[in-house]
Amino acid sequence: MAKANVHFDTMKNWSDEDLTALLDTADLLKSKNTRNTSAFGKVLGLLFFNPSLRTRVSFEVAAAHFGATTSIISPGQGSWTLETRTGAVMDGNKTEHIKEAVQVLSRYCDAIGVRAFSTLRDRDADESEFILNQIIQYADVPVINLESAMEHPCQGMADWMTFRQLMGKQNLKEHKLVLTWAPHPSALPQAVPLSVLEAGIRAGLQVTLACPEEMIPSTQYMHRFNQLANIGGIPLIIEKKQSKALSGADIVYAKSWASGLVYENPLLEKQLRTKTYRNWTLDGEKMSLTNQARFMHCLPVRRNVVVTDHVLDAASAAHIQQAENRLHVQKAILMKLWNLSF
Amino acid sequence: MAKANVHFDTMKNWSDEDLTALLDTADLLKSKNTRNTSAFGKVLGLLFFNPSLRTRVSFEVAAAHFGATTSIISPGQGSWTLETRTGAVMDGNKTEHIKEAVQVLSRYCDAIGVRAFSTLRDRDADESEFILNQIIQYADVPVINLESAMEHPCQGMADWMTFRQLMGKQNLKEHKLVLTWAPHPSALPQAVPLSVLEAGIRAGLQVTLACPEEMIPSTQYMHRFNQLANIGGIPLIIEKKQSKALSGADIVYAKSWASGLVYENPLLEKQLRTKTYRNWTLDGEKMSLTNQARFMHCLPVRRNVVVTDHVLDAASAAHIQQAENRLHVQKAILMKLWNLSF
Amino acid sequence: MAKANVHFDTMKNWSDEDLTALLDTADLLKSKNTRNTSAFGKVLGLLFFNPSLRTRVSFEVAAAHFGATTSIISPGQGSWTLETRTGAVMDGNKTEHIKEAVQVLSRYCDAIGVRAFSTLRDRDADESEFILNQIIQYADVPVINLESAMEHPCQGMADWMTFRQLMGKQNLKEHKLVLTWAPHPSALPQAVPLSVLEAGIRAGLQVTLACPEEMIPSTQYMHRFNQLANIGGIPLIIEKKQSKALSGADIVYAKSWASGLVYENPLLEKQLRTKTYRNWTLDGEKMSLTNQARFMHCLPVRRNVVVTDHVLDAASAAHIQQAENRLHVQKAILMKLWNLSF
Repeated sequence: MAKANVHFDTMKNWSDEDLTALLDTADLLKSKNTRNTSAFGKVLGLLFFNPSLRTRVSFEVAAAHFGATTSIISPGQGSWTLETRTGAVMDGNKTEHIKEAVQVLSRYCDAIGVRAFSTLRDRDADESEFILNQIIQYADVPVINLESAMEHPCQGMADWMTFRQLMGKQNLKEHKLVLTWAPHPSALPQAVPLSVLEAGIRAGLQVTLACPEEMIPSTQYMHRFNQLANIGGIPLIIEKKQSKALSGADIVYAKSWASGLVYENPLLEKQLRTKTYRNWTLDGEKMSLTNQARFMHCLPVRRNVVVTDHVLDAASAAHIQQAENRLHVQKAILMKLWNLSF
Repeated sequence: MAKANVHFDTMKNWSDEDLTALLDTADLLKSKNTRNTSAFGKVLGLLFFNPSLRTRVSFEVAAAHFGATTSIISPGQGSWTLETRTGAVMDGNKTEHIKEAVQVLSRYCDAIGVRAFSTLRDRDADESEFILNQIIQYADVPVINLESAMEHPCQGMADWMTFRQLMGKQNLKEHKLVLTWAPHPSALPQAVPLSVLEAGIRAGLQVTLACPEEMIPSTQYMHRFNQLANIGGIPLIIEKKQSKALSGADIVYAKSWASGLVYENPLLEKQLRTKTYRNWTLDGEKMSLTNQARFMHCLPVRRNVVVTDHVLDAASAAHIQQAENRLHVQKAILMKLWNLSF
Repeated sequence: MAKANVHFDTMKNWSDEDLTALLDTADLLKSKNTRNTSAFGKVLGLLFFNPSLRTRVSFEVAAAHFGATTSIISPGQGSWTLETRTGAVMDGNKTEHIKEAVQVLSRYCDAIGVRAFSTLRDRDADESEFILNQIIQYADVPVINLESAMEHPCQGMADWMTFRQLMGKQNLKEHKLVLTWAPHPSALPQAVPLSVLEAGIRAGLQVTLACPEEMIPSTQYMHRFNQLANIGGIPLIIEKKQSKALSGADIVYAKSWASGLVYENPLLEKQLRTKTYRNWTLDGEKMSLTNQARFMHCLPVRRNVVVTDHVLDAASAAHIQQAENRLHVQKAILMKLWNLSF
């Protein structure tokens, strides 16, 4: 197995062929509602530095469908708090170093999933994927990224699966995806929007990012996405006027994220996110500007802040289907990493 | 399958025939200590808004005995906090709406158990089973009530199973069950006492409720129980003098619950519960008034507040057997909802 | 089965023959990476009064490798808080008595593991193993000690397994084990060092305990270890000069623990542990005094307080191997207690 496929840490290390093969497997797993004993006796460790509903439950269920088991580790909640700084003199409130924790989990588990959100305080640590990369360095078993500082590849794959279901997998180039920023009471990481952009571009959709100037995500990541889009022949469009962006959209993906200003000026960032751009909430009137678009969101979603009840409760909303797809893509990922067969 | 049997949400929707068939199955499961693979690959989601020992562990074990798996979701403890109000503008501290959470869990799990205790602050929400009914509305898979605002049907069924074991299932009409109120430092919901009354009446026992005037449970529920008892030909007796109630009892079930005054005057309610009626603690002297009665309690129990060590540690106490029966009735419920065979 | 082998509560109740047979099984389990269905349908309850990483995950994995399931109970975290005092009037903040909790878990689970650390406040309760012994008294199924006040037998067995791997199981009498005390910001129990001493002595190693005078562990336990060592013909040496102790060592086991002064004078104890003896940190210079010794620690370890990065990251460090051995000895223990076959 090529190094690139040892871990499911970033979509970047997996070719389009690899990822579409995973999606084809996921389609099959969903249609067959597959449950077998192919991973009996295997254990998937799931290390959560942050809360989770869908990710945790869908991986527990994915494992169970193959006869495998999960072990949930939440540092500081029944388990030891973890130090991540190299060379630290550990005389404070952190009980164990991540270096030991990950090496030990590697000896117990057959793969390790890890969720370590963006700090939103240390840009360098976030953009260099400091925690995820330490874990990969110390692990002797496959690592699955359950949302790192800058990426949520399992979400990206579930979204790609949903794009194919909603628009047909042969015709994606003819359809327009709009990822629109939305207000939110909390500063949220950019991992999901970055993965949505990568999935949309690599799926071949016409991708428009609708957001205020200050909300344009990480320059480094946007640079790569522009290159990817240009190679695909469909440039990535950034549109600061929401209504203009929505015109002709076939899929509208709403999501809030914090401006990069959060690192330098969190008070200003909050002001922009909750007050200045409060009118970016997606509602029925805005949806009427689209080409009868389907609605997507990664969940959890703040009703009537990110998007109105009207949009979420309409037949065009696909957010539950999208969440369900998490299960099926993750089963495909486990099959690949553990070399399971049907 | 008739609509009534889709969920195990309330004993009300299940006929006496259905429930006694479940108890017969539970008896068989207990005698055979059944473990098989009939539910291999299935996952039972367990959503806990409140703490649990017996309910959680007994469902984990019940599932495991059939080869199934559980996934525990505790909003706010590793998982997102959940909003339950319809139409809420979610700009506060609740991260996800129960509408999305339950729909998503329905796509992952093969059944969902939910524990959502009484609020003891909003009588209308409690008496209308606001949260449980939302969950049933949003779920596409069977829902099991793990104690809602006004009912604990799994406890009721375990208690009914215990009544049959203690008194013989042919002779229940000849035996007297006394459910006696007891003091407690905390205001507790009425779900358990209401389920005990329903189970006792439907089991055909002579049921006496012993409690101070202010502790008589919800009028709406008591009205239904009086009707049920009258149909069965053995009226439900309410007795405000504990010693009189205990006379001739074959089973004494002790339990504390909050007076309905808790909604309007929580300070007065506390005064009654902890001071005025402090002498309602069940002790050996009171037990000597009975017909050598067996003792029951749903657990957890406050020793020497609800009931003395003397009563709990005597051979006549059946509270551990009663707790064990939770496992077996729940295995029978899973068999029914999942259509499993021996 | 002899009473002594009903529980895995203390190494004391198991003969050298029994324990070395367990280690031989563990060696085989490790070399074969055994996974089978021999315990399918069984449930191991794990009751944690204190945090855990290795112990919890390694038992979850051990059970899964045999097709069994675990149920984790953490009093006060999703489960009820537990009262342990006999005769208590439970009108405070403890919701359930351990007497009921353990009896009930015995009816659900096929074995119960329990972690209840030393109080470090009540010497009598600690030295008499008050909580562990209550649990054994109330349990009807095998009890496994996951670290009690004064003992951590699963750790002791993993350490013994590691001694055999590092030095060869035929030649242990020719090798010197030094257990050296180390500073730490928190007062830690003596359970691990006491189990290390017992394992080292019973393995037949030449054991030296290196610690400041005030850190010599419990008199009662040290008395028993001196007897054990004398019976084996290799006296237990206590050395208050760390450099002298390390000379000629083949294995250096570093560990911090609180002085027994913690019961009478916690402030003085803290002063000794964090300031007076701060220079007991194990570093590369000290390791150079040894016979190219291998390094061991039970984990979690405070880097650069207990031991330096240099020692932990060197090829001579065996702490990860030691942690892995937890899994294999615990699988051997489950096989013994549940009478499983390969």
